[in-house]
Amino acid sequence: MIRILALLIFFTPFTIAQTPDPSLRQILDDQTAAWNRGDLTGFMQGYWNSPDVTFFSGDQIIRGWESTLQRYRNKYQGAGKEMGKLSFTDENVQMLGSDSALVTARWHLEMSDGKKLEGLTTLLCKHLKEGWRIVHDHSS
Amino acid sequence: MIRILALLIFFTPFTIAQTPDPSLRQILDDQTAAWNRGDLTGFMQGYWNSPDVTFFSGDQIIRGWESTLQRYRNKYQGAGKEMGKLSFTDENVQMLGSDSALVTARWHLEMSDGKKLEGLTTLLCKHLKEGWRIVHDHSS
Repeated sequence: MIRILALLIFFTPFTIAQTPDPSLRQILDDQTAAWNRGDLTGFMQGYWNSPDVTFFSGDQIIRGWESTLQRYRNKYQGAGKEMGKLSFTDENVQMLGSDSALVTARWHLEMSDGKKLEGLTTLLCKHLKEGWRIVHDHSS
Repeated sequence: MIRILALLIFFTPFTIAQTPDPSLRQILDDQTAAWNRGDLTGFMQGYWNSPDVTFFSGDQIIRGWESTLQRYRNKYQGAGKEMGKLSFTDENVQMLGSDSALVTARWHLEMSDGKKLEGLTTLLCKHLKEGWRIVHDHSS
């Protein structure tokens, strides 16, 4: 019995680390759906609702859920701005222990004039009591 | 005894996760020293020497240690290029279980004409048999 428990201690963090939780892929799907109905508050549900969530873009560090939402509003809902149609490709989910994961993907925005933008995103996700949430986003 | 082991199973991943390993900060210090002596191969020792290491910059995904080194060579050692003096500020190390960590920082390059560049970096580091290495870099 003690041997079995000792083996469990040794292997548990590694075995748990192997299987990507489907809820992580769901964050991107839910964000895509929210974005494409123009719902930035819905889009922001994927993020940890905390003053400590961080968003890196270019040379700018944005801290906090509200500031991150405001940045999206300024960039995509300001005068003369549009949100475009969002999609993700090249999604990769890597479990880091049982309660952390790294999600990487290529984002695409198709604008109403046919212009296509794209870039990359690296998301650190944590399994919080409210579910999996993005706690750090680095997008370019 | 079984109770103690059961408690260990429960708490081990969480207690280990608390203390940042000083070797992680050392990666940035060693990279800074290598960069500032013009040693890109030395700089690259901080990265996992694998075809699976990933480097995200702008909308470009670079895969593999050799390709990442080549990108640095093209960008900073090509004709008319210079490496500048590298430093990091705003370093943050977050342990993710016992064998993974997220390191974020602001990078600064000071060029010989006094021009100052800066940006952000997000590094996923893994504790491999050779020590802590960067397995994914997203820089902007």
